Amino acid sequence: MERGVEFATLTRIVIEHVSPAVDGGLFAAKTSVGDVVPIEADVFTDGHDLPAACVLIRHDDADWDEAPMVPLGNDHWRSQLAIKEPGTYRFRVKGWIDTWATFRSDLEKRRGAGQDVAVELKEGAALVSGAARRARAAGADGDADRLKEAASVMRRKDTAAGTTLALSDDLHALMSSHPDRRRGAAVSQELEMVATRERARHGAWYELFPRSASPDPARHGTLRDVAALVPDIAELGFDVLYLPPIHPIGRTSRKGPNNTAAAGPDDPGSPWAIGSEVGGHTAIHPDLGTFDDLEHLLAELKRHEMELALDLAFQCSPDHPWVKQHPEWFRHRADGTIRFAENPPKTYEDIYPIDFETKDREGLWRALLDVVLFWVDRGVPIFRVDNPHTKPFAFWEWLLAEVKRDHPDILFLSEAFTRPRVMEHLAKIGFDQSYTYFAWRRTKDELTQYLIELTQGSVPDFLRPNLWPNTPDILTDQLQEGGPAAFRLRFLLAATLGANYGVYGPAFEHMESEPREPGSEEYLHSEKYEIRPRTPAAGGLRELIARVNLIRRGHPALQHDRTLRFHPVDGDQLLAYSKTLPDGKDPVVVIVNLDPVHPRSGWVDLRMPELGMAWDAPFTARDLLGGETFSWTGARNFVELHPGHQPGHVLAIEPGEGRTP
Amino acid sequence: MERGVEFATLTRIVIEHVSPAVDGGLFAAKTSVGDVVPIEADVFTDGHDLPAACVLIRHDDADWDEAPMVPLGNDHWRSQLAIKEPGTYRFRVKGWIDTWATFRSDLEKRRGAGQDVAVELKEGAALVSGAARRARAAGADGDADRLKEAASVMRRKDTAAGTTLALSDDLHALMSSHPDRRRGAAVSQELEMVATRERARHGAWYELFPRSASPDPARHGTLRDVAALVPDIAELGFDVLYLPPIHPIGRTSRKGPNNTAAAGPDDPGSPWAIGSEVGGHTAIHPDLGTFDDLEHLLAELKRHEMELALDLAFQCSPDHPWVKQHPEWFRHRADGTIRFAENPPKTYEDIYPIDFETKDREGLWRALLDVVLFWVDRGVPIFRVDNPHTKPFAFWEWLLAEVKRDHPDILFLSEAFTRPRVMEHLAKIGFDQSYTYFAWRRTKDELTQYLIELTQGSVPDFLRPNLWPNTPDILTDQLQEGGPAAFRLRFLLAATLGANYGVYGPAFEHMESEPREPGSEEYLHSEKYEIRPRTPAAGGLRELIARVNLIRRGHPALQHDRTLRFHPVDGDQLLAYSKTLPDGKDPVVVIVNLDPVHPRSGWVDLRMPELGMAWDAPFTARDLLGGETFSWTGARNFVELHPGHQPGHVLAIEPGEGRTP
Repeated sequence: MERGVEFATLTRIVIEHVSPAVDGGLFAAKTSVGDVVPIEADVFTDGHDLPAACVLIRHDDADWDEAPMVPLGNDHWRSQLAIKEPGTYRFRVKGWIDTWATFRSDLEKRRGAGQDVAVELKEGAALVSGAARRARAAGADGDADRLKEAASVMRRKDTAAGTTLALSDDLHALMSSHPDRRRGAAVSQELEMVATRERARHGAWYELFPRSASPDPARHGTLRDVAALVPDIAELGFDVLYLPPIHPIGRTSRKGPNNTAAAGPDDPGSPWAIGSEVGGHTAIHPDLGTFDDLEHLLAELKRHEMELALDLAFQCSPDHPWVKQHPEWFRHRADGTIRFAENPPKTYEDIYPIDFETKDREGLWRALLDVVLFWVDRGVPIFRVDNPHTKPFAFWEWLLAEVKRDHPDILFLSEAFTRPRVMEHLAKIGFDQSYTYFAWRRTKDELTQYLIELTQGSVPDFLRPNLWPNTPDILTDQLQEGGPAAFRLRFLLAATLGANYGVYGPAFEHMESEPREPGSEEYLHSEKYEIRPRTPAAGGLRELIARVNLIRRGHPALQHDRTLRFHPVDGDQLLAYSKTLPDGKDPVVVIVNLDPVHPRSGWVDLRMPELGMAWDAPFTARDLLGGETFSWTGARNFVELHPGHQPGHVLAIEPGEGRTP
Repeated sequence: MERGVEFATLTRIVIEHVSPAVDGGLFAAKTSVGDVVPIEADVFTDGHDLPAACVLIRHDDADWDEAPMVPLGNDHWRSQLAIKEPGTYRFRVKGWIDTWATFRSDLEKRRGAGQDVAVELKEGAALVSGAARRARAAGADGDADRLKEAASVMRRKDTAAGTTLALSDDLHALMSSHPDRRRGAAVSQELEMVATRERARHGAWYELFPRSASPDPARHGTLRDVAALVPDIAELGFDVLYLPPIHPIGRTSRKGPNNTAAAGPDDPGSPWAIGSEVGGHTAIHPDLGTFDDLEHLLAELKRHEMELALDLAFQCSPDHPWVKQHPEWFRHRADGTIRFAENPPKTYEDIYPIDFETKDREGLWRALLDVVLFWVDRGVPIFRVDNPHTKPFAFWEWLLAEVKRDHPDILFLSEAFTRPRVMEHLAKIGFDQSYTYFAWRRTKDELTQYLIELTQGSVPDFLRPNLWPNTPDILTDQLQEGGPAAFRLRFLLAATLGANYGVYGPAFEHMESEPREPGSEEYLHSEKYEIRPRTPAAGGLRELIARVNLIRRGHPALQHDRTLRFHPVDGDQLLAYSKTLPDGKDPVVVIVNLDPVHPRSGWVDLRMPELGMAWDAPFTARDLLGGETFSWTGARNFVELHPGHQPGHVLAIEPGEGRTP
């Protein structure tokens, strides 16, 4: 708060509101390869002098580079930074008074007003001479000579010729090459941005329980069985295969079907009750296979350009080796027993939470870090983190930094279905992606407001949403009641609203919709507690999934979130939005019928400039989903969607005269 | 950006978005005596533990005090700080895990679920014993004994009795008196808030040119003449009398009537062309009188509980003594002449701007500081600063801090009619009040949006608006064309929308409306260049002014800006808004007809809770302006306003059964 004065140097430029800056620079902003980040700031000075600004930027340990900023009006400036490499980008905004631009602008006004400019030209000549000296010092002798000559012309009696030269584009270009950036200069604080590999930005996730993957319903599925499914999942167009915990499962207090308290001898238990006498977080469940099988699965995924995501659930079954080896890592009750997991009055007798407040904090935390590094070393590139919000923020901040220091390409998805500030904070401290409330956002208003919150403003500077219509924990009432049309609708929304989205695949493909009991979001016979072998799914959803994922690949606009824009459309059941690439190319418009029962029609009013077109321009809208081609002109166009037929239009927009196919 | 980990202590609380914080704490927030400042923050932790929070606060050099924060939902917390004394308030937000509240809440849920709580009660007893030890250490032996007894009851076999005691309000109060604030604790950065005396918050300003104040049109007005007008201005209800510069006026290039280039020998010149052979910024124009006369004026103002505001225009006429004494304080052109003021192509030949970039920066700045201190020493409490945006921000930040260090009660009004970021920055660096764009905000939308911007969100944390319907530089087209109704309307808006407002009084009272030329906002025969003696004003505006200023005094709600709320009302010509005291008392509703020509009527939908009433409550609305009393029930009520009759209703709201007078 102490803001002293320096009489020796005079800072006249003010630089404010530099962005991206998460909580004023307390946290690094997020970006990813292929993104274009607008670096913006308010840059201004007192009086009538004209400021200029640039971004000083440094990628990892490279030299500082710089990029010019352009004024957008109202003292706001911007530079667009295209992210081509992952790594850390440090940046500052620098501003100075552009003496030459100020002189030039004044001279133009004076000439316009017919004022005598003889003295001004002499002053301008001094600026040009200064640039000549700087050019000479920089070894640009050619420029120096030309500048020197220009200065001498401006000093002559012929003020008309001097003015013409002073205002010439040639001289302006020369002066811009040798600017004087000292006057009134200021530089902002240094800010940081972490660029992650492209998969952080977009991907289609598919979750399955490997123990259900056996083609023989009588046999426990294995990682080899999962590997055998990979070609099919890849053909559906998914990028990431996510498996719930693959570790040994405890026996003590094991849960039976539908989360009942007492498991029978053949009940497999919850994969999240991690650890048995066979091993803990670094072991593979014997029934799932071996590390060789994991290696085979990883190879099969690689062959299909897919990646594996494992579950990171930092909790133990009562049979976990740590319970005996490190009893101090668990919280003991007043009667000496270890406290099982609970969220009063709910109880999870098959799980002991880890006590992150243990006195042996360092030992515990390092052991958990070793767990992550163990799987990283075996080639696992992505982790889906179970309930991170029930562990200290400080732990995650430390762990993620430790892992990413040597392995910056490892990605972490935060599964924190909790309050907004908590979800946001987990993103700020380093999670690459976050589950969202998407599953419960249903109406036009809810979807619009929530997606604007996630993709506009400051949130996308630190949080990358991952949209899931279902998970093994979440079977929404809409999916329970809406029939196939609801599944189609929710899938289309997730896959086109979110650059990252995922499905709990087998249950989704089979449109499983029966809840454990009325009012519950749990699946009946949840795979969390039972093995659920399935025959191949029918019903057409697979075709939609494959087609939409293909569209996502063919239209990279859908691989970006920040360009999401909503467009006005009639009624409360039609939703219209668009995405483009950061440079505005590849415009795609999606129009969805949110009503899974009734056909809906109405007029959409496209915000044409968002699509790179004039308000009255003719264009072709090719429905990538339905196959039709519409020749439209201008913003206002009629749409009609039948839920039985298709959930929406996914329109590739091609400016120019419309053609009928 | 380096955020290390401390294994020894575990911070589990996160504190974010503490407010008020101007630019993240870079600048002190503003408040004033009589204000109630909400100190807010997001406070949360991982898991299911319950946080608690307080504000640590320190007034000047007093001891640190603390105030509890209450949760508002969504992890947002607030404490209300009533400002009773001026000075600097430093504050931090502190949060910790409330172990007792967490235990209590869990126990209640367990009891509800019929769980056995024997072990839990033992754990709770340990918490109570801890509190007993803290009470003992603090010398609260009575509390310690009671806590010790409670712990022992909770350890007994009778868990029903133990639970009842554990959940009792008495024990909760005792535990709250001896809290354990160590677990997971965090504290925010220190922020600063400067509280200024009450006049910063509200006041009605009256501007006049003293040279026009003579009752004898043939004679140059004096400060004594101004003193003779004070009783009348005080009777109109004004709080501040503001005089344009009272210094000697230069002869060289003096401007004639209507800003013509050559003044005649009797033309008085612009008061802003400061300085002649008689003296500069610390001299009084000989025709205005002496320092004795100034003292007399100050005494007369004091007698009427008014204050004087002088103009601070840091620029010189070519005849200012500094031009000879300190030629280095001015910018010399290439031909050796001093550059006069200009904003190309506009020229101000009678004014030399000061070169704040002079090499003798320290000498210049100290001389300017001495000017301010000179008038402060003579009893001037307020300065209206002319065009601060044409001088460096760093200069003002330094000067205001220097003055306020020893004279915190001196107020500065920034006259920067320039771009928003520049106006805002001047406020951030220390100006107490700011002129605004109010004069040009005319439609319902414009007024609503602009006043919300000025009074809600972060702007009021650093900028206090002062609303002027006219100034000697600003005669809006609405006043030029709208007749008396426009003057009444703009006055009512200024005086009820703004806790601080002002008028260029004589011209306003006389409803002077003739521009220098069509399209100009300059007055014809502007007082800036001519002496304009006037006879007493007629036309009823004085009655309105006096009445509204009286209402402002009788209803202190109108002395606050932050409580301004707009209410829906039919059409685009009726505007409805309300103010209350910070605690919600003294609700005043203003309904204005923005159309100065046609009567307008419609239904107003009062947002009743903003007025402290239920949506369907009956209440009395007493029109403080028109004298009528309305018995209204509920939100929706009919209004009709005739511009010829009165510009609006100013309604004192009294909840309860309506009465007819």
